[in-house]
Amino acid sequence: MRKFIICTFLVLTSCQFAFAQHPSLLFTQEEVNEIRAEKGNVPAFDKTLSETLDAADAALKSPISVPAPIDGGGGVVHEQHKSNYYAMFHCGIAYQLTGEKKYATYVADMLEAYAKLYPTLGFHPLHLSPVPGRLFWQTLNESVWLVHTSIAYDCIYNTLSSKQRIAIEKNLFVPMADFIMNGMGDNHANNKAFNKMHNHATWATAAVGMIGFAMNRQDYVRKALYGSDETGQKGGFIRQMDYLFSPDGYFTEGAYYQRYAIWPFVIFAQCIEHRMPELAIFKYRNSILSKALSTLIQLSYEGEFFHINDALQKGLSAQELVYAVDILYNADPSDKSLLSVAKQYQQTYLPAIGGFRVARDIKRGESTPVIYRSSVFHDGRKGDQGGIAVIRSRDPKLNSALTLKATSHGLSHGHFDKLTIAYYDNGNEILTDYGASRFLNIEAKDEGRYTQENQSFAKQTIAHNTLVVDETSDFNGDIKQSSLYHSDIIYNDFTKSNFQVIVAKDTNAYPGIEMKRTLAYVTTSFLQFPLILDVLQVNADKKHQYDYPLWYNGHFVSLNLPYTKAINELKTLGAKNGYQHLWLEAWGQNKSSHTSRFTFFNKNRFYTISTATTPQTELKMLRLGANDPDYNLRDEAAFLVREKGKKDHTFATSIETHGNYDVVRETSSNLISSCEEVKVIIDTVSYTAVKATYKGGHSVLLCLCNIDNNKEKTHSLSIEGINYTWSGRCGIFMK
Amino acid sequence: MRKFIICTFLVLTSCQFAFAQHPSLLFTQEEVNEIRAEKGNVPAFDKTLSETLDAADAALKSPISVPAPIDGGGGVVHEQHKSNYYAMFHCGIAYQLTGEKKYATYVADMLEAYAKLYPTLGFHPLHLSPVPGRLFWQTLNESVWLVHTSIAYDCIYNTLSSKQRIAIEKNLFVPMADFIMNGMGDNHANNKAFNKMHNHATWATAAVGMIGFAMNRQDYVRKALYGSDETGQKGGFIRQMDYLFSPDGYFTEGAYYQRYAIWPFVIFAQCIEHRMPELAIFKYRNSILSKALSTLIQLSYEGEFFHINDALQKGLSAQELVYAVDILYNADPSDKSLLSVAKQYQQTYLPAIGGFRVARDIKRGESTPVIYRSSVFHDGRKGDQGGIAVIRSRDPKLNSALTLKATSHGLSHGHFDKLTIAYYDNGNEILTDYGASRFLNIEAKDEGRYTQENQSFAKQTIAHNTLVVDETSDFNGDIKQSSLYHSDIIYNDFTKSNFQVIVAKDTNAYPGIEMKRTLAYVTTSFLQFPLILDVLQVNADKKHQYDYPLWYNGHFVSLNLPYTKAINELKTLGAKNGYQHLWLEAWGQNKSSHTSRFTFFNKNRFYTISTATTPQTELKMLRLGANDPDYNLRDEAAFLVREKGKKDHTFATSIETHGNYDVVRETSSNLISSCEEVKVIIDTVSYTAVKATYKGGHSVLLCLCNIDNNKEKTHSLSIEGINYTWSGRCGIFMK
Repeated sequence: MRKFIICTFLVLTSCQFAFAQHPSLLFTQEEVNEIRAEKGNVPAFDKTLSETLDAADAALKSPISVPAPIDGGGGVVHEQHKSNYYAMFHCGIAYQLTGEKKYATYVADMLEAYAKLYPTLGFHPLHLSPVPGRLFWQTLNESVWLVHTSIAYDCIYNTLSSKQRIAIEKNLFVPMADFIMNGMGDNHANNKAFNKMHNHATWATAAVGMIGFAMNRQDYVRKALYGSDETGQKGGFIRQMDYLFSPDGYFTEGAYYQRYAIWPFVIFAQCIEHRMPELAIFKYRNSILSKALSTLIQLSYEGEFFHINDALQKGLSAQELVYAVDILYNADPSDKSLLSVAKQYQQTYLPAIGGFRVARDIKRGESTPVIYRSSVFHDGRKGDQGGIAVIRSRDPKLNSALTLKATSHGLSHGHFDKLTIAYYDNGNEILTDYGASRFLNIEAKDEGRYTQENQSFAKQTIAHNTLVVDETSDFNGDIKQSSLYHSDIIYNDFTKSNFQVIVAKDTNAYPGIEMKRTLAYVTTSFLQFPLILDVLQVNADKKHQYDYPLWYNGHFVSLNLPYTKAINELKTLGAKNGYQHLWLEAWGQNKSSHTSRFTFFNKNRFYTISTATTPQTELKMLRLGANDPDYNLRDEAAFLVREKGKKDHTFATSIETHGNYDVVRETSSNLISSCEEVKVIIDTVSYTAVKATYKGGHSVLLCLCNIDNNKEKTHSLSIEGINYTWSGRCGIFMK
Repeated sequence: MRKFIICTFLVLTSCQFAFAQHPSLLFTQEEVNEIRAEKGNVPAFDKTLSETLDAADAALKSPISVPAPIDGGGGVVHEQHKSNYYAMFHCGIAYQLTGEKKYATYVADMLEAYAKLYPTLGFHPLHLSPVPGRLFWQTLNESVWLVHTSIAYDCIYNTLSSKQRIAIEKNLFVPMADFIMNGMGDNHANNKAFNKMHNHATWATAAVGMIGFAMNRQDYVRKALYGSDETGQKGGFIRQMDYLFSPDGYFTEGAYYQRYAIWPFVIFAQCIEHRMPELAIFKYRNSILSKALSTLIQLSYEGEFFHINDALQKGLSAQELVYAVDILYNADPSDKSLLSVAKQYQQTYLPAIGGFRVARDIKRGESTPVIYRSSVFHDGRKGDQGGIAVIRSRDPKLNSALTLKATSHGLSHGHFDKLTIAYYDNGNEILTDYGASRFLNIEAKDEGRYTQENQSFAKQTIAHNTLVVDETSDFNGDIKQSSLYHSDIIYNDFTKSNFQVIVAKDTNAYPGIEMKRTLAYVTTSFLQFPLILDVLQVNADKKHQYDYPLWYNGHFVSLNLPYTKAINELKTLGAKNGYQHLWLEAWGQNKSSHTSRFTFFNKNRFYTISTATTPQTELKMLRLGANDPDYNLRDEAAFLVREKGKKDHTFATSIETHGNYDVVRETSSNLISSCEEVKVIIDTVSYTAVKATYKGGHSVLLCLCNIDNNKEKTHSLSIEGINYTWSGRCGIFMK
């Protein structure tokens, strides 16, 4: 904190960029000169430049259209205003790249049209947002508009007469910045939002700060950096850099929103670096922005972000990541793996100096592969609110990832998914996380906003691969309660050669219940691929019904128990908390074996879930889609293990990846699971031991100390006449 | 036929390859020398060679295992025998490539092991096939085994002592060839199969002919070429070349099986070319094998074969196509587009001279793109049994394909799908054909064979995008009846710049019913993408219920009518003929408009089906999966239009492709259909006119003469006070 105060002081006194050159936001004149001079030397970047020019030329061809606001995301007018800011952005840059006046004129004309429209606008006619905009249905989009337009304005600033500037600033930028900062009339929602520690506020401060730089309004810049009270004690961009990322660079809403959140951070930071280099913004808080980018990359699989919380299918190719990679690589070119992110997933560049240098250094052959490492990413500003753990296969050719989530709630985009797991393998999501129910930008689908099934299903606990108690969600689905607590990653060991392990714990999600989950990724000498052992321990003060669902992505192959399949009629599994959306497709009990086995396949590989059950255990196959009047839910399927009337219970599961299925050659091998038995051998307060037995007399014994996380501490257990000794919470023994 | 007889005579007298060099099947000594000499010059082919050597080395590392037969496709022993013939094939070639004796020894040892096992074998213990094998559950696999092993034997022939040869031939090859040709004991199923005009017979004749070449047994070669009676009048490979392809190179079972069928054709043809060049086998019947390959390529989309009949997901990357492309390119290197098939979809080569030359000519830059052309591929030996029509977008960037199937039944793999359509766009299958219900090589799924749902659903008419009368399938699902008839492509016009059209007709599928289907692909000035108009006309001698289903691949967006969605309970639509597998998910009637509209999206594009309806028309949304006790059906969805109590009826439908949905940029446009109305304006015996109206006062008027296919003939109709005149069966007018 001391550092922060000093820095604030320094800035408050030196925030004096008296003579402002243009351009000086996205790039400086020197950088433009470098880009121009290097034309022809880096073909990949030339392509970006010509795409930018093409986009600008395409804009020039269509008449300027600045219609009165009328609709929401995906609507024609909404999309027009969106395409307008891109048009101005591209034309602004095109002007700098070519010096051709027509691009500048186009931006000027459009700005003048906006300057005529804007003063006539009240609040947007769609009253959908608690923070309504004027040009868009929510202020957030207005901030995004202004971020892009600030850059365009900066690019063409020198081409405008002072009369033009005065008109545009007075009628458009000043009232818009004031509106974003303070709201309008009696509605001060914007002022609250502007000063919040929230990613919408990052857009708001970036918008106000950037137009402040462009107009040379120091007061706007100060408010953007330090909040509308200019103290830095309540709001502002600098404080957001302190609050919105954990020390590990994790953003509490999860990777999908971290992608969105990082965009205004890097773009405003780039402008700050140009105009106020004395702030050394990219080095701020141990280079927190670079750390955030590297965490984002680590939270992806095959270039797509893990689907935790309200996630849709986006990843390293998203435009936000292009900005982040190019700007942050330019700020610190030491991390050469950023080049391979750009090369593999983006293949497009920011038309600015960072984009040029990334393309150039790729061409120079400097890129190094991203190393995906098993890691724990802590949540919370101080890193003390749980976290998400990721286990990666050490051999990148295996290309597997396992996640265990034990974070805080994750604000409004969080799900009730304490200790949920997901499994990615062979390029595919295998044990899945539904993510969000939303059809972004599809107006016919709830105007592109979250659908009601996001609340009624996607956020509920049953939508996740974790324990559901008595068919209710964590914290009874109450976000206020959930936001008070967090789970914890209480143990991890990624150092052993043949196994990696993480343990998470939660004591708040259900009253009177403690749950612990141990996830071990084990390399054996006898199985084709590494094995996953999942031990989910529940201890309660009274009896409950426990559901253990695994949502799987693949086609059903076999179940080793007699089951009844719904033939002519399908009914729902339950009536609320997400259960109303589940069709009960098949059900059965395993009376002949204490291990229930389910096999499915995805592409050319097979997966077998083998889990310890009793003849009383109910096994169910579920399909999503009931109570979905508007066809908002995707088709997904789950395997569910139900234990009734249990106080303490340990779910012990072997997740075996096996088989080769070569469609081109029409050959197949190892399509049958090797797992013969999964058994909880010891389960006391102090120790739990799970043994999974495989064909050929092989077995994996996982020994857990339930009460001590000390890695040096030695434990021993006598099992089946043999003494097993290990150090730390988890020991593994293979035969 | 005259030509054939002369040819036969020529061969019967000259079938005298008295001195046989080895190798001389897959390649000659001269070709091996060329391949060896060019090593290092064509890296892509060097990779194939090193993969072949790797496969051979891998084989050498595992002990020879020749177990007694016990299981079916996908089973351990079945797969062992399969991997054995690949091992011998690779080692045989490896020996020729390197001269290293170890490879030859391995083949010899394995052949000796087989020579010990084979005489002990009765029929395969699994009695699953009407044509059972000894080593495999069906003789077909035994033929495939022998095709590969013949090549291996030819490769190492010169390394064997005559004692070894005698033992191997006497105990293994001769009895196996005799078995394939004649059967065993009282079971002569093989003899019938060997002489049939069927692709299994192609494998059988190739196997017998190739081992005949390898053993220098002219009698075997003669029987392979001209049937077991050696006359060429009933069976044999030459006659198969006359009978199994239509003059257009179409194989009646469809592309998926054509892929499989072409393999033994090209491999045996290659051997014949080497040993009996006087037959000019590759030029036979106007180079029918090359024509068959080019038709196969045309019957694919994005490298995957259209899913008609019993198709699974395979395409141009299949190993059969690698053989076909490499062997046929070598036979006639004038079609340079084969190089781009190899380059784009295969990237692997046959380790023989054809593979080398394909790789070399790709390296030389000789490949030209495949031009996918709108075409009619006629079915039937003489091309007189209907056909399949394909419309392709003229601009390859549009990347669309439309199919209309009006073939004969297609033997045992045919479906009851007269006049079914499919639509491919933007790289995806949009209006789908289910193909087959089968999990090839997955033993847990009916031993990898067709599942019962292939019969109960996949083959039934309701599984296709075509008319279903009274909830029964074409020909009441009777293959014998269906095999007596064929539909017809009665008209096509691919010459106009702004529209392409095909018309098909069937008069046999349902007694007393004539159906005609006109499919027009129209390029307008006012729609974003080309439009499809589908006019399905039914004329009957009495009243029926007509179902018009469209199976779609995408997510439901909207329906322009009030509908009830099944919320807590799902029931089936019907009880038989495939209907028992359909969950009735939603239903409604459109009382407020005479055009019913359904929009769905797939990836970044939208599709709207607009169809002329009345307030009585029943509209239903269906989902596949009922009555599927073993989880064999895939999850698919359909939109169904039901007309009850109609004698004559015309289904008129606009299929509009629209919208851009850019996930990376988060922009969208044109997500709402432009279609305002679809109306049947005139519907008489002689003429039908359908008008589809679009936003902005635009319309497309499709005028059909129902009784005259003459392309020169002029027609005119007066509609809404305007006189429309056109030539040929179909005219189109746009406003």
